[in-house]
Amino acid sequence: MNPSAPSAQPFRAIDVIRKKRDAGELSQSEIDFLINAYTAGDIPDYQVSAWLMAVVLRGMTRSETAALTNAMLRSGEVLDLSSLPIKKVDKHSTGGVGDKTSLVLAPLAAAAGIAVPMISGRGLGHTGGTLDKLEAIPGFNVNLSVAQFRRVLESCGCAMIGQTDEIAPADRKLYALRDVTGTVESPYLICASIMSKKLAEGIDALVLDVKTGSGAFMKSEEDSAFLAELMVETGERMGKKVVALITDMDQPLGCMIGNALEVVEVVDVLRGAGPEDLRQLCLELAGWMLHLGGVCDTVAEGKKLGEKLIVSGKAFDRFRQMVELQGGDPRVIDDPKKLPLAEHTVNISSPRAGYVASLQCERVGTACVILGGGRERKEDSIDPAVGVVLHKKVGDAVSVGEPLATIHYNAEARAERARQLIEESYRITNSPAPEKRSLIHRVIGSA
Amino acid sequence: MNPSAPSAQPFRAIDVIRKKRDAGELSQSEIDFLINAYTAGDIPDYQVSAWLMAVVLRGMTRSETAALTNAMLRSGEVLDLSSLPIKKVDKHSTGGVGDKTSLVLAPLAAAAGIAVPMISGRGLGHTGGTLDKLEAIPGFNVNLSVAQFRRVLESCGCAMIGQTDEIAPADRKLYALRDVTGTVESPYLICASIMSKKLAEGIDALVLDVKTGSGAFMKSEEDSAFLAELMVETGERMGKKVVALITDMDQPLGCMIGNALEVVEVVDVLRGAGPEDLRQLCLELAGWMLHLGGVCDTVAEGKKLGEKLIVSGKAFDRFRQMVELQGGDPRVIDDPKKLPLAEHTVNISSPRAGYVASLQCERVGTACVILGGGRERKEDSIDPAVGVVLHKKVGDAVSVGEPLATIHYNAEARAERARQLIEESYRITNSPAPEKRSLIHRVIGSA
Repeated sequence: MNPSAPSAQPFRAIDVIRKKRDAGELSQSEIDFLINAYTAGDIPDYQVSAWLMAVVLRGMTRSETAALTNAMLRSGEVLDLSSLPIKKVDKHSTGGVGDKTSLVLAPLAAAAGIAVPMISGRGLGHTGGTLDKLEAIPGFNVNLSVAQFRRVLESCGCAMIGQTDEIAPADRKLYALRDVTGTVESPYLICASIMSKKLAEGIDALVLDVKTGSGAFMKSEEDSAFLAELMVETGERMGKKVVALITDMDQPLGCMIGNALEVVEVVDVLRGAGPEDLRQLCLELAGWMLHLGGVCDTVAEGKKLGEKLIVSGKAFDRFRQMVELQGGDPRVIDDPKKLPLAEHTVNISSPRAGYVASLQCERVGTACVILGGGRERKEDSIDPAVGVVLHKKVGDAVSVGEPLATIHYNAEARAERARQLIEESYRITNSPAPEKRSLIHRVIGSA
Repeated sequence: MNPSAPSAQPFRAIDVIRKKRDAGELSQSEIDFLINAYTAGDIPDYQVSAWLMAVVLRGMTRSETAALTNAMLRSGEVLDLSSLPIKKVDKHSTGGVGDKTSLVLAPLAAAAGIAVPMISGRGLGHTGGTLDKLEAIPGFNVNLSVAQFRRVLESCGCAMIGQTDEIAPADRKLYALRDVTGTVESPYLICASIMSKKLAEGIDALVLDVKTGSGAFMKSEEDSAFLAELMVETGERMGKKVVALITDMDQPLGCMIGNALEVVEVVDVLRGAGPEDLRQLCLELAGWMLHLGGVCDTVAEGKKLGEKLIVSGKAFDRFRQMVELQGGDPRVIDDPKKLPLAEHTVNISSPRAGYVASLQCERVGTACVILGGGRERKEDSIDPAVGVVLHKKVGDAVSVGEPLATIHYNAEARAERARQLIEESYRITNSPAPEKRSLIHRVIGSA
């Protein structure tokens, strides 16, 4: 072991590790040192992974969390969108199954006069990713340069890309290390990772959609609320308006899961149709975005404006425009049947009559990954056409033999594994569940 | 990050890390996998350092500690000394200032008919190391091959060498990683490190000298006793007779600190003289070694036999013989004035009359390191001649101007820094301390 510790450094990595190990509170300058030196390659992975584990087990104070977020944010470029004379507001979700709200919200908020500079991620584990969904649209390019991103944003009010090398490089490096060292599951580290990337977008306000339930990374509402509070406080400490909605992910959102299928459902919602839960959540999040962005005085007014922009077709037009500006084929937006389609479909029928009592969400997400809609390993490529369409959701009545879901597949063997998972995920009981989980569990923070 | 995890492995490193992070108990096979794959280079440092930090903060059960010791022990060669028809017993100390008992005990126990295959370490932090002391004897070679080591042991009943590449290579690799990742301070990891190396010596029994006080790594008696119990239980689980003495390191042991100076004091003790605390501790430890080795029925008889072997000169002869067999110049043993001497000496005088109330032990050790008797950095070479001779110890009366200690030095600037540390380490009060700390605090385990 011979970690290079340039003598010009004001601290030693070993001392920062020991301090956190012993439950001490790190200063902004200690955290800056660690993050900057790590990003520069001056501190080896093995020291940072020990520090990360100490953070996982010892936690961080609010001020340490803000300091870490700040250090990671400043490890790269922070977009300066001050030349755009309107408010910049983004939305971020902690990830779920069937969650395609970003594709609805970016054009919807843009149509209302807000700029949405959205930097998104790919599918992770059993959850889908916004970038993978966008890439189901033939030609859509998520790898824009910062200059191109800015031009699309200026032209149509929204732009959606993947993380660039310039934005929060510390997060990219830390995330790769966390992924292989059992240090992903820390609300402090999750908060810093999300908030550093989002604040690098140069936004004024942020709406967080923190998922809770069987399909979320945080299964308990308590854990979700803790993370939400942490992110809201961190954002506020950095001078941003931030609100977090704890929303339900105990069953998939909407009815379609799979990249091209989800674009179909997005188009449905933007045309005023689509499943009610997805529609409602989009309007609720839009309401908050428009409220925080100063377009509407209240969230309720924001929701109403959102509905109007859907009915008038303005939100749809904005989506079509963004797709075209980012190289996508706008004809598939006009006619979603032109999206990639799977070769085969098979129905899963209900083995009995009754009511859907629960729908294990992580299993449905995993089924979609197995079909080829997500990655089992990093190097896997994605099949945009495959997925699952749910015909019955929690609370619905079913008769025996009635289709619960349809699997869209291209490979027989994968379909068989997915079928089993979907079957296992439905629990059907004789009488309906006494109460339904609400879509929005609670709201944390407000501006 | 792309840690190579050969698919033939029964486990994944990430799962073992997560299990320990979540306070789970690891099985022998999980620990074997981790240690073997790490030693073979199949698991990267950054995964193991995260795991080490999880162990530091989550702890280990007794059965995990034994499993880790066992895995580290079996990572290399275990000496087979069964051809020697006598009991093999070793002594290990957790390290202190002025602790030169190993150099007395190995020949003393050998003279009593026990084989002592001693593998020792170098100075660490403010403490001295047996190998550095032995190398103060001109020509003494601590780097014997296993075959040479065995020959010396067969010839004179004792042999003293440094760790070889063949013995517990996992410990060598883990220790280097712990040293730079803030994961040294865990009783479980310390236990496994010590016990794996000692049990690899092919011994039947082990006497542990666990230091406690201001000069020990474990400052509190509680921590020392915890480590002692852990080591005794681990040794017993592996079928060995193990006893641990918690002994005082609140002031240096004996009066001489520094490599050549300590050899002088060893010769004094082996000739029946020497300071009383050092003499007593040597006899107590010898008593236990001879008792555990089956030479004497009781520890008291063992102590008596030890005294007899000193008076008769047999212990001294055995020391001289070992020095000669390991390439050392036996004339310096006959006449210790021939050992390397410092060019200069300077006395530190008492600023007042009274009684020595305390003698901050770590500072004295650090003074000796600063003089050149230890390493401030790994690559430093050692000056065997320098050190400190204490004229007054805790409880002693002093008059104003009377010498408290003498510094033996070769470099003026270093002497000045050392002088300050020694002066600060003496606390002198008007009346003697009401009670003196006992030399042996307690004994843990017995065979």
